[in-house]
Amino acid sequence: MEEALLKLKQHFLETVEISEEEWEYISQHFTYKRLKKHQFLIQEGSNVPNEFWIVKGLVKSYFMEDSGKEHILQFAFENYWVSDFQAYQNHGISTLNIDCIEDAEFLVMSFEDREKMCEKVPALANFFRIKSTKGYISLQQRVMGLMKDSAEKRYNDLVQKLPDLIQRVPKKYIASYLGVSRETLSRFSK
Amino acid sequence: MEEALLKLKQHFLETVEISEEEWEYISQHFTYKRLKKHQFLIQEGSNVPNEFWIVKGLVKSYFMEDSGKEHILQFAFENYWVSDFQAYQNHGISTLNIDCIEDAEFLVMSFEDREKMCEKVPALANFFRIKSTKGYISLQQRVMGLMKDSAEKRYNDLVQKLPDLIQRVPKKYIASYLGVSRETLSRFSK
Repeated sequence: MEEALLKLKQHFLETVEISEEEWEYISQHFTYKRLKKHQFLIQEGSNVPNEFWIVKGLVKSYFMEDSGKEHILQFAFENYWVSDFQAYQNHGISTLNIDCIEDAEFLVMSFEDREKMCEKVPALANFFRIKSTKGYISLQQRVMGLMKDSAEKRYNDLVQKLPDLIQRVPKKYIASYLGVSRETLSRFSK
Repeated sequence: MEEALLKLKQHFLETVEISEEEWEYISQHFTYKRLKKHQFLIQEGSNVPNEFWIVKGLVKSYFMEDSGKEHILQFAFENYWVSDFQAYQNHGISTLNIDCIEDAEFLVMSFEDREKMCEKVPALANFFRIKSTKGYISLQQRVMGLMKDSAEKRYNDLVQKLPDLIQRVPKKYIASYLGVSRETLSRFSK
């Protein structure tokens, strides 16, 4: 866990300044979690007391229609913060599943600790403010893509934005993310 | 402008605690802007140095395909914060237009002032952190709707979530927001 915490410290310092005393305080509020491929980080219908920083590995967050059809909302890997944020922020029940595409390691932070730390360490409030704004912008790009672009255009944008991701994610999941069948995807993914 | 600032103060206090001294400092960083129906708050292709808090009125933010087809991304009214956040956050050029559906009044804050104030007043950093998280959650609901729901279902959800909005927005804009024709909308909007 020590190594994971050092990586997290570096991750914070890329965006804000945090003193050694503040880090001493912050670092006490994280726990470490390790999951194997296919295991769940969050399951639909459960409480979501935590959010997770991905130390290593790759996950997908997805939701299911009543018919059982799955829709992948997001892929997340090293340095991403993941949770079912709606359930987490509003103390609700998760409507999303998050499971591991690869073996993965996480640092875990509870909602109460996040709020407490953001009150006590203003730099951390600024860190999550900036991260959240960037997440908002990224989701807005996704909405705009869904409204105006073909699946092929959205695939090409994904390849350009996250070329490494395409190598790590099975094609069937890319198809689900784009909302097309595996066959349709194979027509434009070379 | 005094009245608008008092409303803004109240808006902040609904989420965080701000002292009188802090408010004295914060309130100096806003300017007042008034626009008539059809006027633009942000035009595609321009710099976006500011974000806006809506004191009164209703705006739509939208983007255009090369073909000229418009897609409405969002409606925003009293108490909403609006901008082209991608351009604003990254000092880029706007890809969105925001114009007024009704005469509108705004309080205006620059990016530099926001960052400076969030450093100086931790409560403000927490305010924007929480607002941004809620904006993220709301956009995520939009993405999920676009992925799984019919336009009719998304219309009904909009009516349920923002019943007053439906009264204030011309039907053609609701249709553009949902991504359907005016005729299709009329089939399920009563």
